[in-house]
Amino acid sequence: MKRRDFFKNGLLTSLGLGALGSIPVLTSAASSKKKAKNIIFLVSDGMSSGTLNIADILLRHKEGKASNWINLYEKNIVRRGLMDTSSASSLVTDSAAAGSAWGGGMRVRNGALNIGPNGEKPVPILQKFKSAGKSVGCVTTVQITHATPASFCVNNGSRNAMPVIAEDYLRLRFDVMMGGGAEFFSPEKRADNRDLFDAFQQTGFEVARNRAEMMKATGDKPLLAVFSEDGLPYAVDRVNNKEMSENIPSLAEMTSKAIEIMSKNPKGFVMQVEGGKVDWAAHGNDAAALLYDQLDFDDAVGVAMDFAMRDKETLVIITTDHGNSNPGLFYSSKANENLERLFETTASNQWVLNQINPGFSNSQVIDLFMEYQKTPLTQDEAQIILSAYKFNEEGLYNPQNLPFHPLASIQSKYTSIQWAGTNHSSDFVELAMFGPGSENLSGFMKNYELHNFMLTASKMDKDFLV
Amino acid sequence: MKRRDFFKNGLLTSLGLGALGSIPVLTSAASSKKKAKNIIFLVSDGMSSGTLNIADILLRHKEGKASNWINLYEKNIVRRGLMDTSSASSLVTDSAAAGSAWGGGMRVRNGALNIGPNGEKPVPILQKFKSAGKSVGCVTTVQITHATPASFCVNNGSRNAMPVIAEDYLRLRFDVMMGGGAEFFSPEKRADNRDLFDAFQQTGFEVARNRAEMMKATGDKPLLAVFSEDGLPYAVDRVNNKEMSENIPSLAEMTSKAIEIMSKNPKGFVMQVEGGKVDWAAHGNDAAALLYDQLDFDDAVGVAMDFAMRDKETLVIITTDHGNSNPGLFYSSKANENLERLFETTASNQWVLNQINPGFSNSQVIDLFMEYQKTPLTQDEAQIILSAYKFNEEGLYNPQNLPFHPLASIQSKYTSIQWAGTNHSSDFVELAMFGPGSENLSGFMKNYELHNFMLTASKMDKDFLV
Repeated sequence: MKRRDFFKNGLLTSLGLGALGSIPVLTSAASSKKKAKNIIFLVSDGMSSGTLNIADILLRHKEGKASNWINLYEKNIVRRGLMDTSSASSLVTDSAAAGSAWGGGMRVRNGALNIGPNGEKPVPILQKFKSAGKSVGCVTTVQITHATPASFCVNNGSRNAMPVIAEDYLRLRFDVMMGGGAEFFSPEKRADNRDLFDAFQQTGFEVARNRAEMMKATGDKPLLAVFSEDGLPYAVDRVNNKEMSENIPSLAEMTSKAIEIMSKNPKGFVMQVEGGKVDWAAHGNDAAALLYDQLDFDDAVGVAMDFAMRDKETLVIITTDHGNSNPGLFYSSKANENLERLFETTASNQWVLNQINPGFSNSQVIDLFMEYQKTPLTQDEAQIILSAYKFNEEGLYNPQNLPFHPLASIQSKYTSIQWAGTNHSSDFVELAMFGPGSENLSGFMKNYELHNFMLTASKMDKDFLV
Repeated sequence: MKRRDFFKNGLLTSLGLGALGSIPVLTSAASSKKKAKNIIFLVSDGMSSGTLNIADILLRHKEGKASNWINLYEKNIVRRGLMDTSSASSLVTDSAAAGSAWGGGMRVRNGALNIGPNGEKPVPILQKFKSAGKSVGCVTTVQITHATPASFCVNNGSRNAMPVIAEDYLRLRFDVMMGGGAEFFSPEKRADNRDLFDAFQQTGFEVARNRAEMMKATGDKPLLAVFSEDGLPYAVDRVNNKEMSENIPSLAEMTSKAIEIMSKNPKGFVMQVEGGKVDWAAHGNDAAALLYDQLDFDDAVGVAMDFAMRDKETLVIITTDHGNSNPGLFYSSKANENLERLFETTASNQWVLNQINPGFSNSQVIDLFMEYQKTPLTQDEAQIILSAYKFNEEGLYNPQNLPFHPLASIQSKYTSIQWAGTNHSSDFVELAMFGPGSENLSGFMKNYELHNFMLTASKMDKDFLV
């Protein structure tokens, strides 16, 4: 796995300050006069407190270094707050409502994208910044039309309207949009058979469909880069598969390219970076997928911070939209060695479960998990997993119905990682900031307050405020 | 371990690093000159992130006000950090090792109280502060001899040596020790039949055995106050029971009395306040017990902060020693109304389960849970609970073996609160500070660093540092 360590490569070490001690007190009266020319808003979607914790200790024990996120805390480089993530309809939000709180400045009902409980249609934040002349964009590891990026871009009563959202993007002409979701752009997959990729190209977009094409983009045209049918593969699967890692960029690589392109705009840029599959992995209680995608996101944090520390005019916001499944590394006499099992894991649960065919014996299942996850399942456990597969009408496995949760229950014994559920939680979440405007971060904020916060940090006209 | 503070020592400034203007994190020269005359160290034992969250939203929706802890964040009154809670033997600590990290300044193996992995015997922090002439003490909702208070007081290879720890307290003559644990002081319960209560009285202690006796204490003598055989009752049970609430003080009342007594010392005081049954409730996945004990702890936070904000010479530290069970309020179309069920809950699971006798019918079980917890169990669910009771050799229920976890699984449907386990987790935990010295709180600290942190904030002689 390629990992950019901005402390190693960046500002602090070049100053000879690799061993920064504790830095007393946050304050910076002067900086409140500074303006955030750029904003990089990074979201590890569905990141419970335990996800941040286990990913950090995994990296510390596997590679001897802290995660970028925790390192920023340890070195007192960012300010921190907790954030309340409720939506208009529930104490427990979904990603559409959570993203809309940031994107539109008001709480909406779960499932809605910037459509308020009374039909309000707040202007999405990237439209505001675009109208002020800034470059704007989103990069994500899920469909680029998915709830979290869409919440910064469009108004729609339903997050499920992804085919329509893809058309919205054609009209909106944002500068950089990257992620998965070809299913909503290609004529074979769209119900209306419209070839949106062609439409983007015909109207002056650069369209990239793999890593190499993305890398070549110069920013002369707005860029749409779509690397997979639905979400991108999990990081742990991508880095251990030659074809995937050649064709599909990491979130850090997408982030780096987006910054390269958009930072050319003298008026600045605003972008969202989403580690969207952290949420998917949490729903699936898929520990390896979760932790390596969290670290993949963490690499993007490194890229953003590396830029912002050199640039000095960039507000970086690092957060999540809600907890998911509240995993923890739990007490056991073997907790330490069980965590080590994840050092050598080379495939997600999803990937392994997809290798299992109807005719498999228990022993074949055992061999698979030993090969890819160093996990010595018993015959009984293999049998439980096999029995949990569900056939669809053609007698094949439905890949949406893989036995994620029976597997996760069994795995807890081997990894010491346990889960409180398979869905979102109401947990208050981490909110970290760096750069101009960050001095105004309160120790506890409500998610919708971030909308005006970003506009104010950028000294946008007051008419833009909600 | 000695922490080198480069910023305090002037390294960066002496290097004249203009580039640090880009890091809006530094400074506060003035506050470092202030000295913490007093320290109040508050521990909500075993508080996962979700516990703090759910207790806060419970209070907001039930009583229209935030918890004190979150309010301190919202108003930017305290500084915040995250804390790594590992022990010498595991990424997942127990309370003895976690408390010893603070109390002795080094990581010890799980189960040990200030006895290091190589037999080290660091001097416990309250002994250090006492030797400097300050008043010292502990108040807790569990046995006063339990791991967390004991970790500030004694050296012992095992946290289980509570009868010996009670004798240590006689010798140590700390100023205020309050909580449960009569079982380790009374001749009927001690294996050696020694009457330690009498020994404390004979050697000049004030001994209080109920709320009224405690309230009368003036501090002319050192105070030992022990209100129950083992732990104190859960707050939700105490406040709904006339006899208990007359005889047993809240943690806030104990905290208030301890401050009243110890603040008379012109040299100051240092005390630990533990919400110890938060941990017990988490182990038992007992939602009402957990949340109302967290709020009981939160009241003590209010008492401490009220004193410290007037006093201006008190360092307040608010934290937990480790996560436990990682509860969350989980997604459901009924999450909000399910949480409301806890508004009217008047008994812990433990209390209700203790009412159930061998001859009970399903319907009697259903009636009990409806009366005390507004939870409409089905016949099947009542049957599951009844079947889960285990008889001991006399055919009676073993109160240690109540069916906490089958009940919690059933309750999740009614409360939307779910649990990832029944034991400690490795989660990084909240660490909040107020008052002199708090300006040196780093955004991420290791638990053992707090020992020297407290000594340094109090400007104790450097010889005391570990």
